[in-house]
Amino acid sequence: MLGDIIREDLEEMIRAQSWAELREVLATLHPSDVAELLIDLPGEDEGVIFRILPRDAAAEVFAYLPHQHQAKVIESLSTELTSGMLNQMSPDDRTRLLETMPAEVTRRVLERLSPEELKAARALLGYPEGTAGRYMTPEYVALDANLTAREALEYIRLHGKGKETLSYVYILDKSGLLIDDLKLASIVLAAPDDKLTDIKDTALVSISASATRDEVVDTFRKYDRTALPVIDNRGHMLGILTVVDVFDAAEAEATQEIQRMGGTEALDAPYLDVGFMAMLKKRGGWLSIIFVGEMFTASAMSHFEKDIERAVVLALFVPLIISSGGNSGSQATSLIIRSLALNELKLRDWLRVLGRELLSGLALGMLLGFIGFLRIVLWQHLYSSVSHNYFTDYGPHYMLVGVTVWAALVGVVTFGTFAGSMLPFILRRLGFDPATSSAPFVATLVDVTGLCIYFGVALVILRGTLL
Amino acid sequence: MLGDIIREDLEEMIRAQSWAELREVLATLHPSDVAELLIDLPGEDEGVIFRILPRDAAAEVFAYLPHQHQAKVIESLSTELTSGMLNQMSPDDRTRLLETMPAEVTRRVLERLSPEELKAARALLGYPEGTAGRYMTPEYVALDANLTAREALEYIRLHGKGKETLSYVYILDKSGLLIDDLKLASIVLAAPDDKLTDIKDTALVSISASATRDEVVDTFRKYDRTALPVIDNRGHMLGILTVVDVFDAAEAEATQEIQRMGGTEALDAPYLDVGFMAMLKKRGGWLSIIFVGEMFTASAMSHFEKDIERAVVLALFVPLIISSGGNSGSQATSLIIRSLALNELKLRDWLRVLGRELLSGLALGMLLGFIGFLRIVLWQHLYSSVSHNYFTDYGPHYMLVGVTVWAALVGVVTFGTFAGSMLPFILRRLGFDPATSSAPFVATLVDVTGLCIYFGVALVILRGTLL
Repeated sequence: MLGDIIREDLEEMIRAQSWAELREVLATLHPSDVAELLIDLPGEDEGVIFRILPRDAAAEVFAYLPHQHQAKVIESLSTELTSGMLNQMSPDDRTRLLETMPAEVTRRVLERLSPEELKAARALLGYPEGTAGRYMTPEYVALDANLTAREALEYIRLHGKGKETLSYVYILDKSGLLIDDLKLASIVLAAPDDKLTDIKDTALVSISASATRDEVVDTFRKYDRTALPVIDNRGHMLGILTVVDVFDAAEAEATQEIQRMGGTEALDAPYLDVGFMAMLKKRGGWLSIIFVGEMFTASAMSHFEKDIERAVVLALFVPLIISSGGNSGSQATSLIIRSLALNELKLRDWLRVLGRELLSGLALGMLLGFIGFLRIVLWQHLYSSVSHNYFTDYGPHYMLVGVTVWAALVGVVTFGTFAGSMLPFILRRLGFDPATSSAPFVATLVDVTGLCIYFGVALVILRGTLL
Repeated sequence: MLGDIIREDLEEMIRAQSWAELREVLATLHPSDVAELLIDLPGEDEGVIFRILPRDAAAEVFAYLPHQHQAKVIESLSTELTSGMLNQMSPDDRTRLLETMPAEVTRRVLERLSPEELKAARALLGYPEGTAGRYMTPEYVALDANLTAREALEYIRLHGKGKETLSYVYILDKSGLLIDDLKLASIVLAAPDDKLTDIKDTALVSISASATRDEVVDTFRKYDRTALPVIDNRGHMLGILTVVDVFDAAEAEATQEIQRMGGTEALDAPYLDVGFMAMLKKRGGWLSIIFVGEMFTASAMSHFEKDIERAVVLALFVPLIISSGGNSGSQATSLIIRSLALNELKLRDWLRVLGRELLSGLALGMLLGFIGFLRIVLWQHLYSSVSHNYFTDYGPHYMLVGVTVWAALVGVVTFGTFAGSMLPFILRRLGFDPATSSAPFVATLVDVTGLCIYFGVALVILRGTLL
């Protein structure tokens, strides 16, 4: 609401060309709020606002924009203005921005960087996408182990300006080997004449530059730090990762998980920023694969066509039975996928999970089967005693039909729970991400198997009466 | 692997009663690694390890255990040992622990706290569950605005020990009103004689004590801070929240979202820590509700029973068609739910989303319909020319059946995408969490409607031939 009012005010000031007033209003806002306003403004007004903001403020606002939006701004503003902003971004943010831009624009942007900044951007770009090396920043403070606390604070005061974070500082030896990390707070708390080597805080934890996003998120989850050092395979310090970067990475991880569970390729961008054709491709691919899988249901149904002809009543419960299998499967699979992602479950727990899920499946199947049986008996009675219009006649063998539905549901729900809980383990064991379309795959598997279970049960129970 | 080896070593040392050796090995491990080992050890060995660890180390290890596990330890260890550990926990962690324990145990634990610690725990417990007030810690450093940077550092050195974080310090006036927050780093970077009021870093951002978990996560997401102050409605400072707490909260939020999308009540605990009956209740409830909803498919099918009798070939494609509707619906709903949760989409975007999704649905429906049509024509040809065993005879009107399936898929997939994308908006508008069982509800709605669309289309296209 507030945002809307301010946005209208801004647009009015721009139209009235009240630049002084506009500059004043902008100065009162937090850079992240200005960024949020900009996202909703038309492109030409955006340019005006960037030109009116003081250089420093413009860089801060720019840093808060989503990457897709930053790329647009970079392409539209003058070289002089953007090179100023780019040079003030932190190297890891700049790397991420460069990744989202078309190659030609990236080249033009790299040209605008100062030689030093260019070196940092190039170094970061050398690591494979998705690894710690790609997202670290080389902006940290390294200290010599022989300094006293007082000397260290003095050194930080003189050399620490503009570093991404100073919450942690790092003790390196002459060759660049990482020896320890110290909280800035621990140095402030120490007696001024204490040597850094005598200050004890939490044990050193570091991350390999080749660590994947999941490994990085796990390490932060486990050690509760706000920044961790990144090292190469010989233990030399390369840069740092901050919890803010990792927070974003963890959110992106959860988003991918949710999208994959929903049967879409991960979008890797906000919904409205993905073009219509790109969106169709990401959705149509999986949807077609699953559709082809679901065609086996038509084959299974053809196999039982003669039975359906003889007892059409069986067809009535097909959607109910296969959807129950699918739902119990997707329950199990979503629980297990998330637990695996959070490392609450390990691969070796599969047998324990199997036991639990088989029991759960049996219990849930009995419950649903019982409800289904009741419904059939009840509808039959209401059909004879109350109304022929609203209730269904399941024929003289309605009790047997009820028992068939009950037994089929026990089988289908148990199988759904079994398949749903084991598929994520199998995918993980084979080296795939368990979230990869597990839920729809489970549904397909359970639909086809569920039909076979249902008609199989029917053939046994209804032989000699309906079949 | 490493964990397994160490665990076996530890168990052996315990059995051999080599206490000195055990103490030595434990001293080399990071507290969070010790905690991880403890989780896998039998209860009696756990007690031994807690008794052998130095007091400080025991408290650190304890802090890294999951809350459910902490509660177990508290109940099993001696009063003297636990009161020591409890007094060393940070107040917010202690509050969360107290929440997970049965009331009787909580009372016994509160008795063991020092009077000061008890006051802090009680104050935190006064805020409703899930609000910022419940999870803040009152352990922060407050400074007077008139200090110089040098005086401030001296004050922090003398009074800052044991605070949850010193990365930020807070400027309060005499009445406790929050005036500004300063990074410790900014004070270290300032000239020693600069007044605190002259140090400028990022603008003040604060959180209300009554803010919900989602609001807190959003604020951290937006402002990229590692700690934020919590204030009451008059602007007085109450405590701080750290990004580490919020990281955990954001993960819990994503977990709930995933579980609800899978059609389970949120577990609120790791999979293996939820008892069998509790798990059944959380899963059986939703599963039954959805099952009752799915019963409408049986009613819909009964409605078309006569048509199925006349053209059993129609029944063959029922699972294929309703699952396609369900899959396209769950794709749309998972995309929209996550975008709403991350604030990438706002309520007011619904019309834009509707337009996009209707178009996507049409395009995806045409695609799947085309594949389905091809399959029917192809199988029919293969039936006549290759084998009567592996392929199906769809009868003399197979082209019309193919057209029916094609048109039904266009309708069903479009409806699925429409319902899947709009239901989260409707739930959010009504004040519910959009993730609440959206996916299974969409599936149910789409299954019933899908059947009606399918048979409706069939009645139009096949009238005079099959029907």
